[in-house]
Amino acid sequence: MMYWQEEIETMNRSDLEELQLKRLKKTIESAKNSSHYGKLFSELNITSENIHSLDDLRKIPFTTKDDLRNCYPFGMASIPLKDCVRIHSSSGTTGNPTVVLHSKKDLDEWANQVARCMYMVGLRDTDVFQNTSGYGMFTGGLGFQYGAEKLGALTVPAAAGNTKRQIKFITDFGTTCLHIIPSYATRLAEVFYELGIDPRKETKLKTICIGAEPHSEEQRKRIEQLLGVKAYNCFGMSEMNGPGVAFECTEQNGLHIWEDYVIVEIIDPVTLEPVPDGTIGELVLTTINREAMPLFRYRTRDLTRIIPGTCPCGRTHKRLDRFKGRSDDMIILKGVNIFPIQIEKILMNFKELANNYLITIETVGNSDEMQVEVEISDLFTDDYSTLQKLSKNITHQLKDELLITPRLKLVAKGSLPVQEGKAIRVRDLRKF
Amino acid sequence: MMYWQEEIETMNRSDLEELQLKRLKKTIESAKNSSHYGKLFSELNITSENIHSLDDLRKIPFTTKDDLRNCYPFGMASIPLKDCVRIHSSSGTTGNPTVVLHSKKDLDEWANQVARCMYMVGLRDTDVFQNTSGYGMFTGGLGFQYGAEKLGALTVPAAAGNTKRQIKFITDFGTTCLHIIPSYATRLAEVFYELGIDPRKETKLKTICIGAEPHSEEQRKRIEQLLGVKAYNCFGMSEMNGPGVAFECTEQNGLHIWEDYVIVEIIDPVTLEPVPDGTIGELVLTTINREAMPLFRYRTRDLTRIIPGTCPCGRTHKRLDRFKGRSDDMIILKGVNIFPIQIEKILMNFKELANNYLITIETVGNSDEMQVEVEISDLFTDDYSTLQKLSKNITHQLKDELLITPRLKLVAKGSLPVQEGKAIRVRDLRKF
Ligand SMILES: [Zn+2]
Ligand SMILES: [Zn+2]
Repeated sequence: MMYWQEEIETMNRSDLEELQLKRLKKTIESAKNSSHYGKLFSELNITSENIHSLDDLRKIPFTTKDDLRNCYPFGMASIPLKDCVRIHSSSGTTGNPTVVLHSKKDLDEWANQVARCMYMVGLRDTDVFQNTSGYGMFTGGLGFQYGAEKLGALTVPAAAGNTKRQIKFITDFGTTCLHIIPSYATRLAEVFYELGIDPRKETKLKTICIGAEPHSEEQRKRIEQLLGVKAYNCFGMSEMNGPGVAFECTEQNGLHIWEDYVIVEIIDPVTLEPVPDGTIGELVLTTINREAMPLFRYRTRDLTRIIPGTCPCGRTHKRLDRFKGRSDDMIILKGVNIFPIQIEKILMNFKELANNYLITIETVGNSDEMQVEVEISDLFTDDYSTLQKLSKNITHQLKDELLITPRLKLVAKGSLPVQEGKAIRVRDLRKF
Repeated sequence: MMYWQEEIETMNRSDLEELQLKRLKKTIESAKNSSHYGKLFSELNITSENIHSLDDLRKIPFTTKDDLRNCYPFGMASIPLKDCVRIHSSSGTTGNPTVVLHSKKDLDEWANQVARCMYMVGLRDTDVFQNTSGYGMFTGGLGFQYGAEKLGALTVPAAAGNTKRQIKFITDFGTTCLHIIPSYATRLAEVFYELGIDPRKETKLKTICIGAEPHSEEQRKRIEQLLGVKAYNCFGMSEMNGPGVAFECTEQNGLHIWEDYVIVEIIDPVTLEPVPDGTIGELVLTTINREAMPLFRYRTRDLTRIIPGTCPCGRTHKRLDRFKGRSDDMIILKGVNIFPIQIEKILMNFKELANNYLITIETVGNSDEMQVEVEISDLFTDDYSTLQKLSKNITHQLKDELLITPRLKLVAKGSLPVQEGKAIRVRDLRKF
């Protein structure tokens, strides 16, 4: 068996869209019972009868994180609280936290989503799955726990921290799969080697599910080599339950997003209009298989694109490309949307360059200009003509990607401000 | 409905014992597949056919924590590992840790045990249950989580720590029930009052489930008054899954132990013979409804007694008295078994006494003698005849309880060694 649920996973697009429409109508019916959507739908005269096609979804306004905050705690509940069995709450640094409610059926469907993802990357009931996520309110804990149990794997609820204990569990229990964030995967590998254990030879590890933290393809490859595993990207967010929303298949080329659970839109974060497949924009999701707290057209703020074409794995559910950052980070320059990650991706391709760079946007005369400063590697030349050639080459590639030409400045290693914690890569000095 | 499972909970003793025998035989059949019991049963010729009554259970040797350690990790598994879906492992400060394995059915039965306990103390699907336990390997987390979801309560998986966040959840979500350890319940109450919130009036708290830490009846009463709740003792241990093994009913007089899940014995920890109902001894448990990893006659080291008689709540399952400490703490003096908790209980009844005391046992001539030193309260008299009268009174009560007469010494407050961390209450200076 290649699929956890073959019929659903390989369903042809028209059947899948028919299923989506049916579930969307049902979800609209039930969301009328929430105080938030009840009021909104009645004001806008949105009823399931008025929704004739998936395009009609656009009659419904977006839902934002602020809506969730304003509805705190239970203004989005579509079923009586006595039929809800779990709350997950974000702590949120400012203002009201947000809440997601789940019925028993919701938890079971969520577990099914996660099990489907795990099955997709080759995990079976013979696997030993160790979850290094925090538990409690953090959805990576209970989310993966329930999913892996549904799959039938032997779960090791290690929870976060205590690396030596993690390693003892991995070796003693024959753990074959980890759920782990990329930076901790690197740390775990280091401790393995410090302890004189080669995880590639002396453990049964073969698969890791990584997510929750942005990371590059290079980082993934490095983790795969250090631990001797295949690493698969997973995408989840607490508003959409948590893990299991989208997951890479063994092709490692995009994350299948389960369209029997959500309707996917990619929009231009400025015009709010849909963008064509292949174009980067903000991911907008509508839950169509959640009863306690449906969300319509939720603006995730995450930037990605739909990878056009079909996947060799046979699954028909759309694939999201690796995430490109947050729409809040987007720069609009001369009418063009630019994401810092686009610039980073190009710079990282040049081994002559170091890791530190800084994007500055400022008003020069009547025009807004972008300057990109990047440190050159210690080991690289200081020969002027070589540098000039390199600079030209980089500028050319940036122009191809961004459609505008930034001013590029190669600087000596150590001359840009040292980045600690969350790096500040963009300085916007424009006068508005 | 008064009961979660009326038929089982109020089953008459003979039917209950018949059920136990049937399940015991089935468990013996399946345990033959584990390497540990397989070997043992074949050496001793124990088969389900050789077990004709519950008394025949005594043909099977005790299982100890050392057995569990020696079987680490999977020597006790009675089913293939691919049919197990969870490992809970104790960290264990010395030697090998121990492991308990669970099948899907085991987890479901465990959840049912916990749900039954919660229902027994009046919790329903309309309740909001907040779990302040650590999650991951600690069984108080996932154990209560699954049980409360099975009950249908709205669960708040707060996990341990962050008291202000706990309070925010309690007030924002209308939490009605907490699972909490006694010392943390006291701390939580303090922070409530520090924040100017009266938990008795400004929250919906009504029930708390306390366990995992020894505590006195006075401490329970104090917590109940501070928080405005009823507090129920729960007993669980990871070897027996975790929480849900035994739980107080609303009578608050003993913990019903679910005899459709375990067979209960109380033994003299020295002779290893059964003691009559009402007599303190070591609790020994046999799982009869666990498939992945049954345990036979597991010596818990916990001291308690069966409360004789029937419970007004109508449940027929035996009641365990409040735990009396660990059998490892037992003192044998002149052939009598003495538990420090017996002495503490009596001392604590005298408000003239402070909290600090010390029991010393030493060889005087050819005889072993016990001395009890206890500090008198600051506020109390130093009038000799009053003190003499008090001393006589205490000695008399100790003799009634212990059946031997210790030498009692009333000492000034502050004259005994200050106890930090786990108190050392007994000094055994005998020459053996
Ligand atoms: Zn695929
Ligand atoms: Zn009772």
